[in-house]
Amino acid sequence: MLVNGRPYRSIWFDSDVQEVQIIDQTLLPHHFEIRSVQSLADMAEAIRAMRVRGAPLIGVSAAFGLYLALRENPVDLDTPIAILIATRPTAVNLAWAMNAARLLLSGLPVAERAQGALQFALQLAEQDVATCEAIGTQGCNLLEQLWQARGATSEPLQILTHCNAGWLATVDWGTALSVIYKAQARGIPLHVWVDETRPRNQGAFLTTWELQQQGIDNTLIADNTGGHLMQHGLVDLCLVGSDRTTASGDVCNKIGTYLKALAARDNNIPFYVALPVSTIDFELHDGVREIPIEQRDADEVLRMTGLDADGVRRTISLSHIDARAGNYSFDVTPARLVTALITEQGVIPAEAAAIATLKP
Amino acid sequence: MLVNGRPYRSIWFDSDVQEVQIIDQTLLPHHFEIRSVQSLADMAEAIRAMRVRGAPLIGVSAAFGLYLALRENPVDLDTPIAILIATRPTAVNLAWAMNAARLLLSGLPVAERAQGALQFALQLAEQDVATCEAIGTQGCNLLEQLWQARGATSEPLQILTHCNAGWLATVDWGTALSVIYKAQARGIPLHVWVDETRPRNQGAFLTTWELQQQGIDNTLIADNTGGHLMQHGLVDLCLVGSDRTTASGDVCNKIGTYLKALAARDNNIPFYVALPVSTIDFELHDGVREIPIEQRDADEVLRMTGLDADGVRRTISLSHIDARAGNYSFDVTPARLVTALITEQGVIPAEAAAIATLKP
Repeated sequence: MLVNGRPYRSIWFDSDVQEVQIIDQTLLPHHFEIRSVQSLADMAEAIRAMRVRGAPLIGVSAAFGLYLALRENPVDLDTPIAILIATRPTAVNLAWAMNAARLLLSGLPVAERAQGALQFALQLAEQDVATCEAIGTQGCNLLEQLWQARGATSEPLQILTHCNAGWLATVDWGTALSVIYKAQARGIPLHVWVDETRPRNQGAFLTTWELQQQGIDNTLIADNTGGHLMQHGLVDLCLVGSDRTTASGDVCNKIGTYLKALAARDNNIPFYVALPVSTIDFELHDGVREIPIEQRDADEVLRMTGLDADGVRRTISLSHIDARAGNYSFDVTPARLVTALITEQGVIPAEAAAIATLKP
Repeated sequence: MLVNGRPYRSIWFDSDVQEVQIIDQTLLPHHFEIRSVQSLADMAEAIRAMRVRGAPLIGVSAAFGLYLALRENPVDLDTPIAILIATRPTAVNLAWAMNAARLLLSGLPVAERAQGALQFALQLAEQDVATCEAIGTQGCNLLEQLWQARGATSEPLQILTHCNAGWLATVDWGTALSVIYKAQARGIPLHVWVDETRPRNQGAFLTTWELQQQGIDNTLIADNTGGHLMQHGLVDLCLVGSDRTTASGDVCNKIGTYLKALAARDNNIPFYVALPVSTIDFELHDGVREIPIEQRDADEVLRMTGLDADGVRRTISLSHIDARAGNYSFDVTPARLVTALITEQGVIPAEAAAIATLKP
């Protein structure tokens, strides 16, 4: 999608210099900086530090990370795969991509592995773009129905989103935001309420920036606000992504998603989750019990980074010096609160029978 | 309660210098600073800028503000009352205190009004302290029952609170936190999950500080986190304050309260609201429809203040330069989600019939 009017992807291979390039998402929206990733260690750090983040993008990044590892040492497949899988414990695409890569590459002669890994990563990236675009098209039909049902007026459809399920979370297009980009292209008037998404502020930092770059009207709100807006008829639908979805339709997504789903249910507002089928874990049936929730550094809660009045990027401490914080990254929204899943293969109810019809 | 081991109130009259003193809560927890308030304009600014905040404390502060106005000009009662009421539109105690003062003072000779206003403010402050202490005692009985029901072990009772309903929101003791301070004194082991409470971070700034000064174990969390904790059995009860309560038991409190009440209901966790009877608006019956919700400056969402690595207080911008934000201060939790109201007159169900038995 666009950055200052020019099309970008969140990750790409620069064949001229034989380097993997990423947009360093920890610097957005204050600085737009492209970073060269040259080794397995670089990529593992980039995933852990969330320079690249979002379930689909993490999978593709890990695939490129494996390529970087194998071009140094093509013999050892297990060590880099273990290192990459350990970078983020919750996202299912990561493990999925690594297992697929292992299957493919272990069958190749050692001399061909690095090239094989690069081809795999490039294909995965292209596949992700196609998948995300298809999610957008599927979901856009849904939005058009809602808009038509309301009389297709110039009153914008009011969408609430949480975290960043945009093109920055994937290779391009995004998941939840892909639906919005497609709806914009179809001429549906839109306004997006963007949850700040503490503690890492992906809504404030990334989603508002993405939407603004794409020219989509949006308003940033504190995570506490959605319930009030829904009580007062200011939200027509909620639309979020998913980091991991169970075979029964439970959705593990950024912490706080569950609270918005509860509010949507309490106010009869549809709650949609947009996701590639690759984020479905067909082995899991009870999201709350079975999905391990990543706990991250307390500093992410206790400190915040932004620009001071002089445009200098600074990190400040919010609480008192002895404050202790807990930092849970995800929560699970039970399937009963999800109106429908928007996938590249179609819009389906969040129910085991419907999910079983999807092709993994 | 204690600051560095020494007892304080949030507001007091220093008769030596004939000045009203407040703790400047906008500087906490980074700096503990006492501020002298010398005029109506000073007090109106202090309320608007939230140097003093919390429904009960605002009422008392306005009463002191009226005294400061009348000692300059005892003839005009209406102007200072109108100015003070306009400082914060949602809190009911403010209007209540001003109307009571008007009734009392308009009957006094002009020469006695300033002194009458001071006496009124001092009495209101003492009353608030007594009320809050009584709320603590009433609620503490409830906590003791919950703790006994669990076998009275050394496992701490896990309490989730939102915003700051502590002694800083009142003259002393607090409302929700008064219950916690009384339970601590009774030897009940406690741990408090403190919602950060964006956008003004009263949880991160004030509640964690209050609890730490009082030696109560607590953990700061992002506002998004409570639902996850409740799903995993990590919260025994929710305990919050109220800025305004309807005759039917709807609770208007800091934005985000409603979301926690929904999560508590979804997980069968009791949701208690501690409040002085003075915050009940007996004229209102439908909180969502009838209570006007204050919208504050977008800057409160877009910027944040804290200490940098050198201990300098700095304000940073979070989002991109063109970002737009919405800032709704309160939401309404419908009575159906409230397990009980903890008042100084007793613990009662959030129902019209029970509320009607309270003495205003």
